[in-house]
This record gives sequence, structure tokens and C-alpha cells, in this order.
Amino acid sequence: MSSAAPQASGSGKALPLAMTMGEPAGVGAEIALKAWASKSAPPFFLIDDANRLRKIIDDLCWGMSIKEIQAADETPGIFTKSLPVLHRPLNAEVIAGIPHPDNAASVINAIRTAVEFVQSGQASSVVTNPIHKKSLYDAGFKFPGHTEFLANLAEVDTPPVMMLASPELKVVPVTIHVSIADALASLKEDDIVTTAKITAQSLEDDFAISAPRLAVAGLNPHAGEGGGMGNEESAIIEPAIARLRQLGIDATGPWPPDTLFHEAARKTYDAVICMYHDQALIPIKTIDFDGAVNVTLGLPFVRTSPDHGTAFDIAGTGRASEKSLLAALNMAADMAARRNSQG
Amino acid sequence: MSSAAPQASGSGKALPLAMTMGEPAGVGAEIALKAWASKSAPPFFLIDDANRLRKIIDDLCWGMSIKEIQAADETPGIFTKSLPVLHRPLNAEVIAGIPHPDNAASVINAIRTAVEFVQSGQASSVVTNPIHKKSLYDAGFKFPGHTEFLANLAEVDTPPVMMLASPELKVVPVTIHVSIADALASLKEDDIVTTAKITAQSLEDDFAISAPRLAVAGLNPHAGEGGGMGNEESAIIEPAIARLRQLGIDATGPWPPDTLFHEAARKTYDAVICMYHDQALIPIKTIDFDGAVNVTLGLPFVRTSPDHGTAFDIAGTGRASEKSLLAALNMAADMAARRNSQG
Repeated sequence: MSSAAPQASGSGKALPLAMTMGEPAGVGAEIALKAWASKSAPPFFLIDDANRLRKIIDDLCWGMSIKEIQAADETPGIFTKSLPVLHRPLNAEVIAGIPHPDNAASVINAIRTAVEFVQSGQASSVVTNPIHKKSLYDAGFKFPGHTEFLANLAEVDTPPVMMLASPELKVVPVTIHVSIADALASLKEDDIVTTAKITAQSLEDDFAISAPRLAVAGLNPHAGEGGGMGNEESAIIEPAIARLRQLGIDATGPWPPDTLFHEAARKTYDAVICMYHDQALIPIKTIDFDGAVNVTLGLPFVRTSPDHGTAFDIAGTGRASEKSLLAALNMAADMAARRNSQG
Repeated sequence: MSSAAPQASGSGKALPLAMTMGEPAGVGAEIALKAWASKSAPPFFLIDDANRLRKIIDDLCWGMSIKEIQAADETPGIFTKSLPVLHRPLNAEVIAGIPHPDNAASVINAIRTAVEFVQSGQASSVVTNPIHKKSLYDAGFKFPGHTEFLANLAEVDTPPVMMLASPELKVVPVTIHVSIADALASLKEDDIVTTAKITAQSLEDDFAISAPRLAVAGLNPHAGEGGGMGNEESAIIEPAIARLRQLGIDATGPWPPDTLFHEAARKTYDAVICMYHDQALIPIKTIDFDGAVNVTLGLPFVRTSPDHGTAFDIAGTGRASEKSLLAALNMAADMAARRNSQG
């Protein structure tokens, strides 16, 4: 994986992180403000409407300070006193919980802007707040989600890979946002190999794991129990593991999925390649509901996001937890520093 | 649910539990001895070959004492000093890790004997050690597993239900030991309703939960996200929940599976009705690998077992953990006491 984004290497100063607004009717701005106020976030700037941020602070009687910036490099000097904001005015007034179609373009542009900052070497990485896909689709957005849009902006040709990462567990689903029936129908040896290769590379580059150990989950109960409960293990997963091992990747399995995620098992691998969404998401969200981070692998820059949605039901109340966003910020900063130290 | 097994009600003395040998080449005897030696098990007797138990104790240099009994009611007077053993000699010498076909009949008979003891009111419940299915099949055993054999012995006509229970979580899969493809093909509204009804009844009778709350999981990621990722939720699961609610059962859902098992979510229900094996088993084994107990619901007597297999790889070493068997013993004793107090 190439480390395309130039970094302020040798200067000893890390570049700031660029954070997108996400869906403004969701909790993005609130958790961004709370993450900044926690004083445990690495320096970042938020691409958002400064006026509506001031209104949130007023409405919630929060004492936080924001400061508009014109350039990313103002961030380090400001960050200890105020949250730096790259002001991008919204077209319509924001009502918590109710997305406005006139704001969709700003949501999309904030993502584009964040990518431009990393591509031009002014930001170290992109941290995205949750979007509301339907609002963007209605406004003509042509991508299934963040990940595919970012891949398009980054001009990469292999599909990016989604990792969910917490301090205790890293999981990578091969099939993602499809029904169980479609996951079954679309599970392919090639996709397992590609996903595992990108994962192994990222574990080396971004997580400084020199010889990553990948545990590959089976699809069926007991990993098929020798064919008695499904043959996808022998037909699809085992050949993929054999190819990975021929490539020198330490991939093992297929492992029975139910005994793969407990504490002792987690010590035996660095990441699990999972066959479907919930096989990956159930264990990590069970272990660490607030702290898991969504990491996009296979892009030429670092991108993370909190592992939750817009939370319309509590938007505007200030109650949303900043924990996952904070974890996403710190993980992105760490990943960027590692890529930088290698570049 | 009828409480068929007579109990020593009013006597103030609980009946002993009957424990089967399970596959003798597995870890059953070792964990039974360790569970007894822990001094935290309720009084139980083991149906096994006393001579081979003495050999295990010698081989492992354990200081435990066993004592042969002729009748279950000898158990309470012996239990503090020795593990009571109902001697049932095996036909072939036991080699750890290698099942001998000549011993299969004894394995099956131990299960039958345990059931006879509860049916005749001499034991409070059945606790089974892990069996090795293939060895029994090869010997002509006609049942898929313990559960179906016990249902046959108990002469119940509805299929029994498997619950996995730990102090933190109870899960009940509607489809069990089938491939993911077969789980999809066989998932039926009626089976969800039947499973949930038996579960609700057991939570009342066996776990003393007066108005049990059942969370019903979706099948697909995000519970299908309104049909965008599968329609089993609207076609199968929602109608089942509606029927359960009409029956006065507090069933809710379908819930997104990945956000259903974390600590805060677990406080909102008493058990989760799951659509497939790993949806149930992944979270409970991730949370509590050693402590989960397999409970058979829908039988006229209490039956539990440890939630693990024969562990041939460590059989004979004494290293197998007795934790799950101990949890199974204590859960069975508690369940039997509750049924008894209602009878």
C-alpha cells in the first residue's frame, strides 16, 4: 500500500486531522465538540457550519469555544483553547433528527474537502462523522456509502475493506451490507483472498504488526463440522486460506465462529477475516459497544469513523457519547504517524 | 409445562442430581471429579465405570475419593467425603482421545439410566457430559444428539428447545445444528412462535422470572434495514412477534443483531430468541467462554450440560476446566428447586 499523503516528516509536528460534519441533523457536531472538550483528542479541525455549532453550544449551555480557521495549519496553535472550524455554511436551518435535503450537498462537499486536505498534505487523515444515506441518495449521491465515495475520490481500483477495530479485537467482514442470503450467494474465494491481503498489509503499515496473524472464520456452525453442516468451508474458504499461505500470509482456519472471539482466543491472532456482517459486528459490539472504530483499509490515506450512526433519536440532546469518535481520532492519528514513520 | 418428576417436596432435602459419563475418551470424568473436588457443586452422583475413575485419579496423582453406591439416596450421606458413583462397567479399556466402539452402548445407557432416576423421583435432574456423536452413530444411535434422545425418553411431542445460559445472557436459537443455507431455508414463523413460547414458560418456571421479556433478533444485518437488506424480518419474524404479543408474551423486535448483546442492551430483556446457531453462540461464548450452560427446555424434567465438547485434544491431562460443568450442576439444582417449589 502506498503512503500517498505527504506528511510533515522530520519536523516532529504531526499534521492535524480533518473531520467531516456528517449529517447535520445527527449527533456529529455534538460528539465532535465533546471529543474536543475531553482534551484527549489529537489536534483536528472540523469542516462544518460555524454558526450552527455556536447555536448548539448555546442551546446546550455548553461552555466550549470554537474558532474559524482559513487553513489547516492554524490548527495546532488554536487547538488547546478552541475547536478549529473550517466554516462551510449550510443552506437550510438544521433541525435535530430531521435531515433537510438542501443540506445534502454540504455533507458531500465536506467529505470531498477533507480528502483534498489529506491529498494536498495539509491534514494527516480523514475522520468522518455519520451520514444519513437516504438523504444523500435523494440528493443524487451515487455511492452506496462513505467507503465507496472515498475510494472514488482516492482513485483506487480495488474495493476498499472495512475493518472494525477496538483495543481488544479487529474484525474484517468479507461481505458487508447485504442480506444473509446475498452474503451466502456472493461469498467468493477471490474476495476472501483480496480482503485478507489488504488486511495483512494494513496491519503491517498502519498497526506496526510485523508478521500479522489472520484467523479466518468459517461460515457455518462449527465451521461446517467436516461438511455435515455446509460445504462453503471446503469449497470456498479453505482454498482461499491455501492461496494466502502460498503468498506468505499467516492465515489459519476456517475456525468455528462461536469459539473464535473469547478472551483467550483473541490472543492467538491479530485480526479475524469474517464471512458476513454480523459475524464480525456481533462480537466486537458485544465486547466494546462504544469504543469500536470503523477503519477503511486499502485507501492511500488514513480514514476512520465512529462505529455508529446519526442517532437521530438523541440528536440535539447532547447525550450522544463521544467515545467512539474519540477512539476514531486517536486511531487515525496513530495510523498516520506509523505510515509517516515508514515513508 | 408439567413438572413430571416427583420431588422430595416438603422434606427440606433436595434430591441429588444424576450425571452421565458422556464419551469416556473425552474429559467428562475428569471434569466431574474436579467439579466434585471444588466443594461448590450440589450433591450429585456420577453414572460411570468406577474402576476407570480410580485409574484416572491414580494416573493424574489426584487425591480424590470415590465411593460406589447402589441407590441415589445414598448420595447426600456420602457426598462431602467421596464422589458417589453408580458403577456401570465399560466393555473396552478407555484410551483418552480415542473413542472405542464397544463403549458406545454404555454411553447411551448412562443417559437412559439418568432419565430413569429422575422419572422415578430419585434424582432431581439430569446433567450430561459431552458425547461424541459419530461414535454413537456408528453404534446405531438413531438420534441427532442428546436433546432428541432425551425428548424421546421423556415422550414429549414438541421438539425440545436449546438455551445457552450464563449469569449475563440467555440465548435460544430457533434453528440450531444446520448450515447457514439450511437455517435460511428452514426458518419458519411457527418455529419462532413455538420456541419463544417454550422459552417464556421456562423463564417463569425454571428461572422464577414472572413476566419474561423476550428480545427477538432479526436475521439480517441491521434487521434488514426496512427491507433493503433482506425481507425475512417482515415476512417471517414480525408476524411471529405479533402472534406472541397476542398470546400475552412480552416479545419485542426484530432487533439489529449486532447491537443486541452489549452490556446495556442485556439489561432490557431476559432472553434473546436467535435465528441461527452462531447468532446465539457467538455472543454468549465471547462473553463467557467457560461459564455458559446448555439447558434443554420443553422436557418434563430439568436437563443441563456443559457448553463444550469432548475436548479429545486435552483428555487425560487433567487440564480441562470444570467451570462449565459446575455451572451446569448449580443451574440444574436451582431450576429443579424452583420447579419443586411450584409443584
